[in-house]
Amino acid sequence: MLLNRNKEELYFEIALGEKGEKIKRYSLKVGEGIAGKVAETGIPIIENDVENNPFFTSKFDSLTSFKTKSLLCVPLVYQDEIIGVIEVINKKGKSKFSKNDLKLLQAIANQASIAIKNALLYQDLKNLFFDTIESLVSAIDAKDPYTHGHSKRVSEVAVMIAKEINNSESFLEKVKLAGLLHDIGKIGIDERILTKKDKLTQEEREIIKKHPTIGRRILEPIELLKDIIPGVEEHHERYDGSGYPKGLRGDRISLLGRIISVADVLDALTSDRPYRKGLEVELAVLEISKLSGIEFDPFIVSILNDLYKRGKLNCFGS
Amino acid sequence: MLLNRNKEELYFEIALGEKGEKIKRYSLKVGEGIAGKVAETGIPIIENDVENNPFFTSKFDSLTSFKTKSLLCVPLVYQDEIIGVIEVINKKGKSKFSKNDLKLLQAIANQASIAIKNALLYQDLKNLFFDTIESLVSAIDAKDPYTHGHSKRVSEVAVMIAKEINNSESFLEKVKLAGLLHDIGKIGIDERILTKKDKLTQEEREIIKKHPTIGRRILEPIELLKDIIPGVEEHHERYDGSGYPKGLRGDRISLLGRIISVADVLDALTSDRPYRKGLEVELAVLEISKLSGIEFDPFIVSILNDLYKRGKLNCFGS
Repeated sequence: MLLNRNKEELYFEIALGEKGEKIKRYSLKVGEGIAGKVAETGIPIIENDVENNPFFTSKFDSLTSFKTKSLLCVPLVYQDEIIGVIEVINKKGKSKFSKNDLKLLQAIANQASIAIKNALLYQDLKNLFFDTIESLVSAIDAKDPYTHGHSKRVSEVAVMIAKEINNSESFLEKVKLAGLLHDIGKIGIDERILTKKDKLTQEEREIIKKHPTIGRRILEPIELLKDIIPGVEEHHERYDGSGYPKGLRGDRISLLGRIISVADVLDALTSDRPYRKGLEVELAVLEISKLSGIEFDPFIVSILNDLYKRGKLNCFGS
Repeated sequence: MLLNRNKEELYFEIALGEKGEKIKRYSLKVGEGIAGKVAETGIPIIENDVENNPFFTSKFDSLTSFKTKSLLCVPLVYQDEIIGVIEVINKKGKSKFSKNDLKLLQAIANQASIAIKNALLYQDLKNLFFDTIESLVSAIDAKDPYTHGHSKRVSEVAVMIAKEINNSESFLEKVKLAGLLHDIGKIGIDERILTKKDKLTQEEREIIKKHPTIGRRILEPIELLKDIIPGVEEHHERYDGSGYPKGLRGDRISLLGRIISVADVLDALTSDRPYRKGLEVELAVLEISKLSGIEFDPFIVSILNDLYKRGKLNCFGS
């Protein structure tokens, strides 16, 4: 069990054994029960007769119809900070938990604490990274009321589509980032053109068309982002080769680019514009389907249709 | 020794023993020498007579006037990927490296590989985080030719100042981030006001003065950034209480805010403006010193003067 961020509750990170799945939905206050006591004090508890232990709570037993007889509970400690506990229940056979069992479990807990803390720190940093990008991108989007929240929504649909292709964490993270950053190049374009309510001139349209290339240039210095650049640079390419900036055709457009392109247009069609209200998601998916093989990769369009049919796109549209 | 990012070279991450410091500046190509061979093949080498080993190179021995006789070299492997090697040289006494020594070193290498890989991944992600923020912030700064590179430079001086106060990594990282993000609230302000070349109206000045508060709002949703928000929100507070947005006085202004304030003005004074050329750094430091205790914290100003005298600010000014 790990302590939550406020150090007030223990939740089950892993629960094994016959009632493992059942018990996972419950949690424990710090100080509550034997595990809660160990999490509070950092002192291990070895108890072969739980009924007579004043700290024992039968809460989990009654919730899961289980009978706890003996248990051994040690704290997970990392640099003097208690991060959770490991508890083992009901020693097999008729024997009791021994001091040797405690020693062994403590050795495991020491190793586990380092690994868990590392994983938590890494996850924290990753969340910080994504949250910060999301906040900055949202602040940029918010300059224009019509693009408010756009990049975040594009990122979300793009990830939904991507999950149907490859559920690996690293691929989904790339898609999420490419979605968040696809319009980042718009920072480099004059606000007056971006937010102009009248029809754009030919020259202004050409300026706006530079945003995928500017986006690439902004991200290019970052070695670890090089995999996501195609998603940013190629989200206005079209499947028939008539898009920009490079006029790439079919599978020459990166998978990221083909995914973001569909997600981008879905959000654009379902969002209000100065000259029209946003479309219903059903109509937007229909519009996109009409351009399957022309503007969009038919494979991605088929995934979008499938998501729509499964009710996954209900958050979109007016 | 660890493999560099391109997997072409081994460099000394740690080198202990009498020639340790000396050898650290050198590196080895993958495939070169016994360590290079182990890094290439992933197969450990135990050699008690290096002279007769065809892979042995005496390069390091001649560079450091050392005599290698026997060695034991095992790969650092993490999930089938070779990330480096551990090598021990010259078994003590007259005995030879044994298979047991090899087994022991391999056990150490297995543990070390996990810890090293975790540390590398964490460092990679941290670099990605800072690099990405820097790129986004630079792109925002670049909208106005007069603030091009401003946030990065402010961040750099702020870190120089901070190092004189507390050299801990976590403090310096906060200062670096606060420096990079101090003007992020300007995203929320109309570009036409920000880049206006004529004198600003009273109303326009009031709008610009909102950027520290907007900055706070942009960053507020990010739990892990809450410590740096005071640096962003309070970088226009003045030591005598006449600043904005809150009119905080003296030490009521956060340390981050007092540091960023000095760094911000140093960069502003030394940068060109539409109506004047940037000041020499000497004059800028003098200007800031005149306002010590009025606009700026005397303690921070004294650090700035000290940095100037030690020639650390030569990168500033025209």
